[in-house]
Amino acid sequence: VLGSIKIDVPLSSLISEQRLLVSSNLNSSAADTPPRDRVLQPYHIPVPQPSLDDPRSDLERVLAALPAVHPTVGLSAVPGAVRSLPGLLRQHDWQVQALVRGGVVAAFTAPDARPIGLAVDLGTTKLAAYLVDMLTGEVLASDGRPNPQIGYGEDVVSRLVYAVNGGPQGAKTLAHAVTNTLADLSRELAARISLTSQDILECCIVGNTAMLHILLELPVGQLASAPYIPATSLPLEILAADLNLPFAGDARVYIPACVAGYVGADLVAMTYAAGIGKDNRTVLGIDIGTNTEIVLSTGNHNGNPRMLSLSCASGPAFEGAHIKAGMRAAAGAIEMIRLGLDENWIKTIDDTPPVGICGSGIIDAIAEMRRMGVLNARGRLQPGLPGVRENAGKLEYLLVRGGETGTGEDIPITQNDVDEILLAKGAIKAGITVLLEVSGLKLDDLDEVLLAGAFGSYLNLDTAIAMGLLPNISVKKYKQVGNAAGDGARQMLISSASRAESAALARQIEYIELASYPAFRRIYARSMSLDEVSPPASAP
Amino acid sequence: VLGSIKIDVPLSSLISEQRLLVSSNLNSSAADTPPRDRVLQPYHIPVPQPSLDDPRSDLERVLAALPAVHPTVGLSAVPGAVRSLPGLLRQHDWQVQALVRGGVVAAFTAPDARPIGLAVDLGTTKLAAYLVDMLTGEVLASDGRPNPQIGYGEDVVSRLVYAVNGGPQGAKTLAHAVTNTLADLSRELAARISLTSQDILECCIVGNTAMLHILLELPVGQLASAPYIPATSLPLEILAADLNLPFAGDARVYIPACVAGYVGADLVAMTYAAGIGKDNRTVLGIDIGTNTEIVLSTGNHNGNPRMLSLSCASGPAFEGAHIKAGMRAAAGAIEMIRLGLDENWIKTIDDTPPVGICGSGIIDAIAEMRRMGVLNARGRLQPGLPGVRENAGKLEYLLVRGGETGTGEDIPITQNDVDEILLAKGAIKAGITVLLEVSGLKLDDLDEVLLAGAFGSYLNLDTAIAMGLLPNISVKKYKQVGNAAGDGARQMLISSASRAESAALARQIEYIELASYPAFRRIYARSMSLDEVSPPASAP
Repeated sequence: VLGSIKIDVPLSSLISEQRLLVSSNLNSSAADTPPRDRVLQPYHIPVPQPSLDDPRSDLERVLAALPAVHPTVGLSAVPGAVRSLPGLLRQHDWQVQALVRGGVVAAFTAPDARPIGLAVDLGTTKLAAYLVDMLTGEVLASDGRPNPQIGYGEDVVSRLVYAVNGGPQGAKTLAHAVTNTLADLSRELAARISLTSQDILECCIVGNTAMLHILLELPVGQLASAPYIPATSLPLEILAADLNLPFAGDARVYIPACVAGYVGADLVAMTYAAGIGKDNRTVLGIDIGTNTEIVLSTGNHNGNPRMLSLSCASGPAFEGAHIKAGMRAAAGAIEMIRLGLDENWIKTIDDTPPVGICGSGIIDAIAEMRRMGVLNARGRLQPGLPGVRENAGKLEYLLVRGGETGTGEDIPITQNDVDEILLAKGAIKAGITVLLEVSGLKLDDLDEVLLAGAFGSYLNLDTAIAMGLLPNISVKKYKQVGNAAGDGARQMLISSASRAESAALARQIEYIELASYPAFRRIYARSMSLDEVSPPASAP
Repeated sequence: VLGSIKIDVPLSSLISEQRLLVSSNLNSSAADTPPRDRVLQPYHIPVPQPSLDDPRSDLERVLAALPAVHPTVGLSAVPGAVRSLPGLLRQHDWQVQALVRGGVVAAFTAPDARPIGLAVDLGTTKLAAYLVDMLTGEVLASDGRPNPQIGYGEDVVSRLVYAVNGGPQGAKTLAHAVTNTLADLSRELAARISLTSQDILECCIVGNTAMLHILLELPVGQLASAPYIPATSLPLEILAADLNLPFAGDARVYIPACVAGYVGADLVAMTYAAGIGKDNRTVLGIDIGTNTEIVLSTGNHNGNPRMLSLSCASGPAFEGAHIKAGMRAAAGAIEMIRLGLDENWIKTIDDTPPVGICGSGIIDAIAEMRRMGVLNARGRLQPGLPGVRENAGKLEYLLVRGGETGTGEDIPITQNDVDEILLAKGAIKAGITVLLEVSGLKLDDLDEVLLAGAFGSYLNLDTAIAMGLLPNISVKKYKQVGNAAGDGARQMLISSASRAESAALARQIEYIELASYPAFRRIYARSMSLDEVSPPASAP
């Protein structure tokens, strides 16, 4: 920059105030369920003071008072714990708290210290972090952030391409972008409860398979192209220091099992936390995102209970990307729409003047435009109808005039926007269709449909059903559960039993590869139309 | 430096060519004993190529072919191993070697790779490193280096003081001095067999308790003053990366058990490798160094077999320090001496002109000076006898005239030199006396005396016995075993059974604290005299 310039930052591009869902509506939250098998088991130990006649090492002195710890031979404490022990014993009058993980002391703390851990849901678009009491599961602080990798690619595939083409340095750039954000967020959350991130003893990070590969700097070349093979989909434990996370010296990060290359630990965590497959009901679980992952528990329906899963490349359109006036779910985003003959009714987040349109608003728009006949069954804008106009040779529907918006500019829905949404909607609908087909179930067999994640929790069920994104069954069967993957992460953070159960669950869930499903292209093509909703006879 | 100057580097100060003992004479070397329970168990695995119909992750694919690895749930491979797997499988036609440690894959390598590890004996004065085949125990390359911490203190206590007074930075300085040297040495050894230090998968480091504390950056304040409490004396496993060692990503460093604050893992390793305590014989094991550690296995002698140990602060005099013409065991060091009426006979290392005197030479000198009557029974130089002269008001014995030395300067033995040696000799003799006293044994009950370490292996037994450093028993009962601690380190490097057995041995060995032994001061004072050797009646 050589002289004074003016920089325009479109209001709709600001992401600082983005609405990031960190809570869930599940009853089975970690706080309510005391862990059956704690990852960190606390012991409060008073030890006899040493002398020339009792010169045992500090660690032996402590372990002698620890019935649960492993016997004479073998490892007994991680190096970081041993480093802190002499100081703690001498500062706290020969009392100390030992936190034992799998027969090994993972940390020593002051006798009254509250051991904390961090649970993370690492999404393609955003990440949510929860600071958790390791003994009770209570959430002490939580917050969300946009995934800073967005600058390197909006969806999973473009991130993988960046990591592959950029070589080790590209992969590192992506990994560090996330770990730096996670480090900052952990410092901030810890500060809120007057601790530091160095007090974090344990961490659990769920996410889709690609995000976890990138985070762990696992090779992704083989994941980026068919047959889409993960380096691993088994649970993994890694030192926090290995990920440059500023936690306690020997803090571990637990990465739960994934199902396949495109069905990750986040779906497993969601399925586990929501209890899908724990009873005989037929339940569909959907986490709509840049990749939409779907799980179906067939229940006892045909005598052969199965858990099936797949992933649909729904793209980032529901998050406002690739949509002309699209934006993330932040203040001023249109989130509800009802079209009228004379006037359109809209509602924005925080009720501020509209600056763009977010995912739930776009769903409303498509459903309403179809209802009003502005779109035909194949999703084409109908020229000549009220609101439909030509702009640079292409049709678009004027949703809000510039005079009524926060930016002074029109908010239109273009034919291209409609096409993007129908591609995304078609992908999800096709996924559900394939799952039902493979399991031999019909829509009516579904006892419940769980919608997880931010978009699934904020969307308007009636319009999502009307435009064919969601199956046309009673709204009463739907449950919008919020960030269930975060719930699962918190349970696996504190409970060894949850880790084992979710790992077993991951192995139980079958994966259906759409790319090799025979009829997929036909099903997908059929799923993109808008024939679910009949426009009223009195279409304008 | 402002102008041209001349720098004199005394020949006797050069340490580059120091003789560092890395070999041992024990029969039970690791190479001869195939490990009963390998630390790294190799499996050669061909795996089926993935496809859209078999999209299992690389790791699952490999583990399915691995019968020995742990079942479905739980951790299955360290992160570094997973990182290398996709590349290896695709470069080597779907064949890979898995190296399994305790049910977890510690590393994947090319199918024909030879897994290597590094065993280290970390002494106060020097360190010895062995590059070892992890499967056969064969030593592939080995070498020694002076311990670079010498610049911060010659003996254990002064190093501890430096670490305590220097705070965390002082402790770090000492730790990094050693790890940097170890890193360089490991690179050099690996290069000798056309590998890199990154190929080192496992490491075992033995040393005395203080050296290991400093290496691991464990707190040492409580170890430096009575009652001399270690942070831990149990076995410890630490990531090589944690010690800044340039080994394979997830390489582990095994630190064996110590006995007490001043009886370390090196004595345990020596005792284990030499098999002391494995049979019914009464065996004394001595590792003479800056600290001399002694172990006594009482055998079946009085129906109550015990293993006893203690440590004597013998100081660095035997390594040439605090001796006016003293030097380390390098070329030109006098290592053997016979005094005559007319002429003194000396032998130097490498037979070069003498520049100083090393440990075994000093022992010879004292014994011979006593034999010739130059020293009386209390260790005082006798004025007026041949060779005895005054220098700056103090007595000294002229061993070699300047005209015959490599430096042109006289090589004397001063009264102060004699005092230093008698302090050291007294400490060791007192230690042996206490061990026999505690166990109710007499000198004649000893079946064997093992001398380990460089000094013990090079010293001349007859003069060492004559001047009272070693017990006056048949020379046939002595065995100079070389670096037995290094042997033990190599066994523990490759064998889990050796780790368990040596850890059990460490717990079995009792520790005697000389500082609280009632009669110690009296015994020590008595042990310093030279009354073992009667000068011949015809003394000059």
